[in-house]
Amino acid sequence: MALRAKVIYDFLSENQGELSVQEGEILTLVSEQDVEGWLEGSNSRGVRGLVPATYVEILGHDAALNSYNTSAEPRYSNVPAGGFAQLENISKPPPVGLTSNTAPLQQHHNNYKQHSQGSDDDWDDDWDDSSTVADEPGTVGGRYRDSEGNGTSTYRVTTHTGQRGNAMQTKSSATVGKNLNRFSTFVKSGGEAFVLGEASGFVKDGDKICVVMGPYGPEWQENPYPFSCTIDDPTKQTKFKGMKSYISYKLTPTHTPNPVSRRYKHFDWLYARLAERFPVISVPHLPEKQATGRFEEDFISKRRKGLIWWMNHMTSHPVLSKCDVFQHFLTCTDEKAWKQGKRKAEKDELVGANFFLTISTPPAPLDFQEVESKIDGFKTFTKRMEDSTMQLNATINEFARKQMGGFKKEYQKVGMSFKALSQAFEMDQQTYSSGLNHGISFTGDAYEAIGEYFYEQPSKDLDPIMDLLALYQGHLANFPDVIHVQKGALTKVKESQKHVEEGKMDRAQANGINDRCNIISCATLAEIQHFHHIRVRDFKAQMQHYLQQQITFYKKITGKLEEALEKYDNL
Amino acid sequence: MALRAKVIYDFLSENQGELSVQEGEILTLVSEQDVEGWLEGSNSRGVRGLVPATYVEILGHDAALNSYNTSAEPRYSNVPAGGFAQLENISKPPPVGLTSNTAPLQQHHNNYKQHSQGSDDDWDDDWDDSSTVADEPGTVGGRYRDSEGNGTSTYRVTTHTGQRGNAMQTKSSATVGKNLNRFSTFVKSGGEAFVLGEASGFVKDGDKICVVMGPYGPEWQENPYPFSCTIDDPTKQTKFKGMKSYISYKLTPTHTPNPVSRRYKHFDWLYARLAERFPVISVPHLPEKQATGRFEEDFISKRRKGLIWWMNHMTSHPVLSKCDVFQHFLTCTDEKAWKQGKRKAEKDELVGANFFLTISTPPAPLDFQEVESKIDGFKTFTKRMEDSTMQLNATINEFARKQMGGFKKEYQKVGMSFKALSQAFEMDQQTYSSGLNHGISFTGDAYEAIGEYFYEQPSKDLDPIMDLLALYQGHLANFPDVIHVQKGALTKVKESQKHVEEGKMDRAQANGINDRCNIISCATLAEIQHFHHIRVRDFKAQMQHYLQQQITFYKKITGKLEEALEKYDNL
Repeated sequence: MALRAKVIYDFLSENQGELSVQEGEILTLVSEQDVEGWLEGSNSRGVRGLVPATYVEILGHDAALNSYNTSAEPRYSNVPAGGFAQLENISKPPPVGLTSNTAPLQQHHNNYKQHSQGSDDDWDDDWDDSSTVADEPGTVGGRYRDSEGNGTSTYRVTTHTGQRGNAMQTKSSATVGKNLNRFSTFVKSGGEAFVLGEASGFVKDGDKICVVMGPYGPEWQENPYPFSCTIDDPTKQTKFKGMKSYISYKLTPTHTPNPVSRRYKHFDWLYARLAERFPVISVPHLPEKQATGRFEEDFISKRRKGLIWWMNHMTSHPVLSKCDVFQHFLTCTDEKAWKQGKRKAEKDELVGANFFLTISTPPAPLDFQEVESKIDGFKTFTKRMEDSTMQLNATINEFARKQMGGFKKEYQKVGMSFKALSQAFEMDQQTYSSGLNHGISFTGDAYEAIGEYFYEQPSKDLDPIMDLLALYQGHLANFPDVIHVQKGALTKVKESQKHVEEGKMDRAQANGINDRCNIISCATLAEIQHFHHIRVRDFKAQMQHYLQQQITFYKKITGKLEEALEKYDNL
Repeated sequence: MALRAKVIYDFLSENQGELSVQEGEILTLVSEQDVEGWLEGSNSRGVRGLVPATYVEILGHDAALNSYNTSAEPRYSNVPAGGFAQLENISKPPPVGLTSNTAPLQQHHNNYKQHSQGSDDDWDDDWDDSSTVADEPGTVGGRYRDSEGNGTSTYRVTTHTGQRGNAMQTKSSATVGKNLNRFSTFVKSGGEAFVLGEASGFVKDGDKICVVMGPYGPEWQENPYPFSCTIDDPTKQTKFKGMKSYISYKLTPTHTPNPVSRRYKHFDWLYARLAERFPVISVPHLPEKQATGRFEEDFISKRRKGLIWWMNHMTSHPVLSKCDVFQHFLTCTDEKAWKQGKRKAEKDELVGANFFLTISTPPAPLDFQEVESKIDGFKTFTKRMEDSTMQLNATINEFARKQMGGFKKEYQKVGMSFKALSQAFEMDQQTYSSGLNHGISFTGDAYEAIGEYFYEQPSKDLDPIMDLLALYQGHLANFPDVIHVQKGALTKVKESQKHVEEGKMDRAQANGINDRCNIISCATLAEIQHFHHIRVRDFKAQMQHYLQQQITFYKKITGKLEEALEKYDNL
């Protein structure tokens, strides 16, 4: 008898081996026993893969179907339910329903998703090449030298102590153990491989990423050529004789002469490149996807605002703003060049573990104890910030709802009652009361208008705050992984020290681990510092914008009431 | 077996023969059959009297107690439920629950109540004399000439055609029939007796009430010496060594040198005198009584405001403001003189039917058809005004409740969320963010303060509107009776014309009825005109006050927000 399970939350496969499933779907499981929170099974079409154990409810063997635990509660409680608590475990996001009780929050995005499946933008069209380089044989290593003879110095960097190439990948792990959890961010990000000295790649001067010592600790070297980029004119385009349609946006960077036209799927592709490229950088999340109604004006406007926020965070980031793939995305206007650049980015060797090869650190190594304390402090901070932004988001979402519903209704009811009174008064047959009747009627109209003001206001002040919070909730969702990589590196340092003490590792090898942990720590602290800087900048700007809008709003109400008051002046 | 009935609404006896009862009380009925909507019965103390049939629920004979119809629905539907519909029937007010679904409306007062029973102010103390003149023998007629030799010309007026004295009271009614409904306002007010020519009394020059022809029809001659009166310093007084306590108010009229001290019961006594004295004048209702907590600050402040409104309407009325008993109330500072004036007022002959003797009309008689159309128009107007004030009252009562509850809560929740965010931000260990944190914290405080503003506001703007509406709802409750008297008179005119055509009445007698109907019509139209004038004045003033308060309110909010915005200026 087959073991069946019912899917209780939608799950989108984000890594090879995972199985995308939809709520309500029935799966056939290989075993009831989960492995590190994952169950193996196959769907009705026979496709096999892993699904998170918390996303399904085991129904039992065929015969027992429908008679065994049909509640929506996940059967397993040994799988973390979200937030920092799961940091040391798996990085897979929990079902949204478990972490957040607020409705419109941006869905948790995962740093490491590859091409999105079920995206609202189709990918398979002639402008883009849907095949990825990873599928093509014989393209590993040394590409840049071959394809680009542009004279920049390119050199091979390796972290192998006295060894070259990838052949020794499993060897050094015999000394300092590899993490057996293949879903660990530390492993997936390449952090582990880098610390253990397994990363290797050619780094051009242009790829170098500098961490410098600033007044508050390590920070990314500022982009010497800062720029910004506007996103305008969302335009509906069609192709295949109208069979397919999509929205394109005009992107106008300040540092290039020509605007470019990009679709959401291009952003999405870029996001995927950046996420795999920069393990300890919090790549801003794209505005959430929406399966239906994506050509509706509200949605387009909302998405555009989200993309503007996203772009703002991209261009503000000293590392992200400079990177090749982003520049290609912003500047390429030629179709052929686009394809070439796309292919190049997808073949990029300096992703994951190799990314760390590109980082240059300040001369003095960091005090790891101090680093650990700073990271722990930041962890506490992000937890608090996560809680309070969640609360603020819920509160202002409710506030917006109330203003658009109850508040509007109350003011309009008052308006209508005044108008009813003025209508009753108009029956008094007295000429001397017509001025009063008009005044009361105008007052009624004024309150109806004020009700409308309340209805319109949230889109002007609360919505931008919610957009801000959504963006930051994205960052806060990224940081557990960022921190996890640094923590993993630090654990390796401690392990190596122990091994040296026990004579199981030579000091040179341990020093190498130390140095590489220093690189990861510098990058992590620089990223944290950057986060604080943009956070202060963004929240200041948004609080000011919010208060300015609120002031304008109450002044508008006051003006309307003053207008009404004047009507009584010459009665 | 005794027939029992359960009282379902409180009823306060307002006329001799009626029985005050309380909700839940069990009565023993004489008969299950009501007479014109009244049932006779006795309470548990054996006191016997009439109660409105709709106020009780008949339980059946003792044995059937509790097994017979225990719903709260009145058993009889042949008794009018309120408003104009009952005009031609009885004038007894229906239970409040049946006419009004809004909570804080002033309870319906009856024009013709005598000493209030169950009042919250005790009456039986040494300062006041609780015995009424009606109980004393030998005090009918011609008193003024005997007791007051002050030289004003006093003359006897009678409406009897060619006859003098009261002997003929029943005679003329043989021709134009008397209304058999002893509860009819037309009968109770003395309107019927006057129209039928049965009223008789001595009218001094000072008692004359003039109706003049104004631009909009008949109106009361203006008071040539207008004045106003403030009500201040509600002070708790005790007597009987602290056994009894009461609140006294300082009344300061502008036309006398000395303020007087009055209690609510004095207002109540005055109200009763005025209500029986002026059948076609809408005597403003006193602020509602409250049995418990009458020394609480809120209640005292609310009552004082109500008394101020009442006083304003009294001093604004050309007839009421000048009348002896009101002047006595406003000016008498001597205890002995007070008693004397009180006794005199209670002995006043010119009440009810005789009141109409005091009215002098414009020379040209009114066109009754036009009068009827005006009265009907006013009836429609009052109905519409009653509905719309009821609606407005309900709306703003709810609006006030929302502002003090939901609105306050929403703003304060936003405030608290901002503060929580600033507290989270304070954990960031970054010195450069402390300004922002302070700004957000201040913004949080500002929203909490704004929540408080919303809580406080209704007492400043909506409460006065509700006070205004309560006062006008009192007037609107008076007008059915006022109109009823005029309608009754008009009916008598029509009857008399028919009788003349049929040769049953001589033309002189019919002309007398015509003339007296003209007097009632003039007074009624003058009162309606006065009502419209003060209505326009009061609503204009209150709408202005309301809007001014609202403007101040939103400006205060704006100011608070501007203060918050400034905190972000120098970050």
